[in-house]
Formats: sequence, structure tokens, C-alpha cells
Amino acid sequence: MRCDKRVLSIQSHVSYGYVGNRAATFPLQLLGWEVDAVNTVNFSNHAGYRNFGGTIVTPKDLQLMLNALKENGMMGQNYILTGYIPGAESLEIVKTYIAETKKNHQCTYLLDPVMGDDDRVYVNRDVIPVYKSMLKLADMITPNAFEVELLTDIKLSKKENVEKALHVLHFSYGVRYVVISSIAFGSEGELCTIISSTGPKNNVFTRILQYPMIEGYYSGVGDIFSALLLAYFESARSSTENLSGIDMLTQATEKTVASIQGVLSNTREYASKILPADIDVDIDNDKENRKRIIRQRARELRLVQSQDEIKHPNIKHKALNY
Amino acid sequence: MRCDKRVLSIQSHVSYGYVGNRAATFPLQLLGWEVDAVNTVNFSNHAGYRNFGGTIVTPKDLQLMLNALKENGMMGQNYILTGYIPGAESLEIVKTYIAETKKNHQCTYLLDPVMGDDDRVYVNRDVIPVYKSMLKLADMITPNAFEVELLTDIKLSKKENVEKALHVLHFSYGVRYVVISSIAFGSEGELCTIISSTGPKNNVFTRILQYPMIEGYYSGVGDIFSALLLAYFESARSSTENLSGIDMLTQATEKTVASIQGVLSNTREYASKILPADIDVDIDNDKENRKRIIRQRARELRLVQSQDEIKHPNIKHKALNY
Repeated sequence: MRCDKRVLSIQSHVSYGYVGNRAATFPLQLLGWEVDAVNTVNFSNHAGYRNFGGTIVTPKDLQLMLNALKENGMMGQNYILTGYIPGAESLEIVKTYIAETKKNHQCTYLLDPVMGDDDRVYVNRDVIPVYKSMLKLADMITPNAFEVELLTDIKLSKKENVEKALHVLHFSYGVRYVVISSIAFGSEGELCTIISSTGPKNNVFTRILQYPMIEGYYSGVGDIFSALLLAYFESARSSTENLSGIDMLTQATEKTVASIQGVLSNTREYASKILPADIDVDIDNDKENRKRIIRQRARELRLVQSQDEIKHPNIKHKALNY
Repeated sequence: MRCDKRVLSIQSHVSYGYVGNRAATFPLQLLGWEVDAVNTVNFSNHAGYRNFGGTIVTPKDLQLMLNALKENGMMGQNYILTGYIPGAESLEIVKTYIAETKKNHQCTYLLDPVMGDDDRVYVNRDVIPVYKSMLKLADMITPNAFEVELLTDIKLSKKENVEKALHVLHFSYGVRYVVISSIAFGSEGELCTIISSTGPKNNVFTRILQYPMIEGYYSGVGDIFSALLLAYFESARSSTENLSGIDMLTQATEKTVASIQGVLSNTREYASKILPADIDVDIDNDKENRKRIIRQRARELRLVQSQDEIKHPNIKHKALNY
């Protein structure tokens, strides 16, 4: 039972707020996708709140869930998306499952190597070599700048180094489509996304999308990024336009960034309404801890209120050659 | 941080298909609701497939998740919805949490006492007395006919007995709004929903909605029923029409049934397209087991493809006085 818009999404679950599968599932469903959501953790809320309850799914249970999907003939997704998967052992299980799926049928795998951001690793470091070994399976990856550094051991301090790192990802690891979701090139207050694809003659096409940064820290942005990129990539691929690889990836990225800018604008507007003026403080005593939690709650993504922005992204920024 | 459309939904999670929170969350989100989804199980697929992997959330972990929500100030939902909760111990934990929430702020609790159907109990019987004790907390309940019998110990074989059972639910247990989601009164091939509310002078208003049954067994229908009833009830309550309790409940039920008829029609049409003509057999040897699984997969609710039916229910059947 194949279906053109069916994705297996292996990520975290939280009851409150939007990260992992909670961030990916609704936008994809809204765009008409069947989302088979395998949860890697079952938490009350994301760990950024510091206080949270629930459990990490054990490697054994993850294996049993994937086995059941396989035995029940529920493997026919034409896309696989992986995000936060805690621990090397679970990641190895996912790797084996995906390798088997890809042998079984044509399937596009988007790997988001969720490891950290802003020079901080927030997973166990033992996943890094496993992610490196999984790149061979991936058709598309969406690391942020820091994650590219972890995967390639190249510091992205200057433009040439980005090209070097892309070369490693494309040719040493064989990833056709690379989108570096965010990198702080460009001027103050701006953010960039790098879009890169190999062509038929092993040439590399790279583009850059530059846009204003929306201030404030929001969790789960990377998780909607990969989900929407997947959806918009499939719509570019299945369109009658007959686009090249780099053009499909560019169109998908422009739509993704536009959608996310819409969601973040709505979130920022909401947060600014309900947060007292003095709330934007970063101190860690008891009193401020309460404030921090209020601030985080207010900044949970306004996904259900941004259906229009997800369905009809308003593209304001176009990619240029890198 | 209160919000007019925010619900705490405590139900099961499955990766593939639509029961529990997987059936409730998307329709509610589509209608603009924030859904804080506490998962009581984390399974690959529902148990009707017989083969499934994953775990039941332990009472201890459920308690820790609810504690974290409380400590992080994430209790401000104006609705609570509970569905499948396996085991008396977990149910007691949920009961305590809801009692505390209701002391804390104004909140409408819709209890769906998920216990069984068609004279078969599919939970541990130790939950029955706990559900009875939880009725005092509930503002609205959505049992099917068999669950009414389990709660009231009255057999719903004739019309007068339904009235007796409703009397017990309204007055011995103090539930204001009762919707018996499905009961096989009426003629062959028809299904009924009973809508009942107490009025300001402790009088009882009861109505009946009769509609054609859509053939085939579909899982998760009760779970969308309670989710949509909650959403449409809130929209009736917050409308400017100034409706009475029974009129709000009737309007909500008519919309719910219309939506579900739309989803089920789409599902049946899809299933009939992909199932070979000989697939509708109910035998339990190895070969037929494979066919049963194929049949069940084909009958997973077409929720993401029925957005229009969920957002704009086409009411074809109106309730009459009982």
C-alpha cells in the first residue's frame, strides 16, 4: 500500500509545546501527509524547561515498535524523516531499519542530525560517529552550521570552508541534497540558509538564502524546518514543472523559510502580548526560574494558529548563487 | 495563561493509524485548538491488529508527567478530555489530577469511559468502579450503549431503560451532559445517538439522532467522536446565539455525527478501492491473518484527507425529541 505523501517520522514526543514529532506532525498532516510517528521519548515538555517528566523509549522498545511496523506491512512510506534520537544504540537500530527499508522500496530519507546548536552539543557524543555512518543512507540532510562542523570536522568560519564542508558531505558521504538550515553569515540581524545539490555530472550547485532574523529563542524551529522542507520538496518533485535537483531544493527551501518566518512572527507577536516588559531576563535564581518558564511557555510555536502561513507560504526572499 | 481553545487530552498513542490521541489531536488542531497530549501508551499500532510493539506508560511515569505539567504552570486548559487509560492505578492518578485542576480553575471535563463495545470489555474490569467514581467530576460523558450498561448496571434493551439509565447518570452521578454515542435502536442499517441534558429546574431534556450506518468496522471512531463533540460544544457555547444546554449539546452532536459520516464515507470509499473483492473474510488461520491486517490497514480513518468534512460538517440529520 504505497502512497505519494506518507512519511515515517522518528522523533521525540512532548505533551505540551512543539518540538520533535509534535512540531513535525501537524504541519505535515495539514499539507495532506500521512505521518507515521514513532516517538523516541515520551515527555511532558521539552528539556529546555529543565523540569520535565516521562521516559526515553529504550532501544529494546524502539526495536519492538519498528519490528511490529515491519511485520504488519506498515513500511511502505515513500519518505523517512528522522530527528532527535537519544543515544547511539537507538540510532543504530534506526539505521538498520532504514537500510532495510531502502533495499525494499524506493524511498527518500531526510536525516536531520539533531545534535546541538550555537557551539553546544545537547546529545550524547556517542551519536556523532553513528550519524556520520548514516549519511550514506541519507538523500537529504538539514544540519545547522554547528552540526555541519560536527559531521565534517571543518570550522565554518569563512565562505571557502562552507564549500569544503559541502564537498565532504556530497562526495565523501554521498549526500545529494544538503540544506544548512541556519548560519550567521550576512549582516547583523540577518540569517542565512545554504542550499546545495550535486548535478548529473557530479558538479555542485550551491545557493544562499538571506533573510532577517526574528528575535527571541524558539524551540522546535529546526524540527518544522525539516518537516516542511520534505513536504515542499515532494510538491516540487511531483509538479509538472520538471525542475532540476537544485531548483526543486531551492523552491522547497524558499517556501520552508517563508512558512517559518510566518509562524515565528505570529509566535513573537503572541509572546510580546502576554509577557510583561521585564520578562526578558536571563538569570537563574528561583524567582527568575519561574519567569524563565513563563517566557518559554509564551514562546511555544503558534502552529495551530498559523495554518494559513503553513499552507500558503508568502515567499519574500529568493535564493542567490553562492 | 488561559486560552479559550486549549484541551488536555489523556489517551493512547500509536505510530501508525488513528486511535486515542492520534485520532483526537489532528481534528482538534485543525479546528484551532491547542492540544496538550498526554500519552497513556506508546505503541506501533492499535491492538486490533493483534501484533504490536511498544509500552504502556507506567502509573509512576504518568504521575511524573502530570507533576511536571503542574509544576511548569501548564495546567491552564479550559477543557480536559480523557479516553483510553489502561488500568485502575493510572486512572486514579488522572482522577486526582483532574479533581485538583477543577478546584484550581473553571474547566469543562469530557470523560469518554473507554471500556468496550458490542458486549465485549476490552480493558481490565478494575477500571469500572474508578470510572463510576469519576463521573462526579465529569461535565460531559460520551459512552456507547454498552458502556452505559457497565456504568449503570441497567440493560438498554428498551426505550424506558434508556431513560432510567440517563436518570442514574444525571442524578445519582451528577453528570449534566450525556451523549450515548451509538445505540442500535431504529431500523436495520440505522444507528442512533442519544443526547441528554439536565435543565435549570432539574428537568431532563433528551433527544435522539438517527442516521444510516456506514458498513464496516473502523477503529478510533469513538475517539474522534468525543474530540469533535468537545470542539463543537465550545463553539456552540461561545457563539452569540445564547443557546440552552440541550440546544448547545444537540448542535454539537449533529455537527459531530455529520463530520464523522464524512470521514467514514471517505474511508469506506478508499478501502473499497484498494481491497480485493475477496478480502472481507473473517477467518483466523495464517493466510487469513495476513488478509485481516491488510483489511485493517485499509480501514484506518482517512483523517488527513477529510479536512473539509471536519471543518465544515454537512448536517443531513437533525435530532428529534426522545
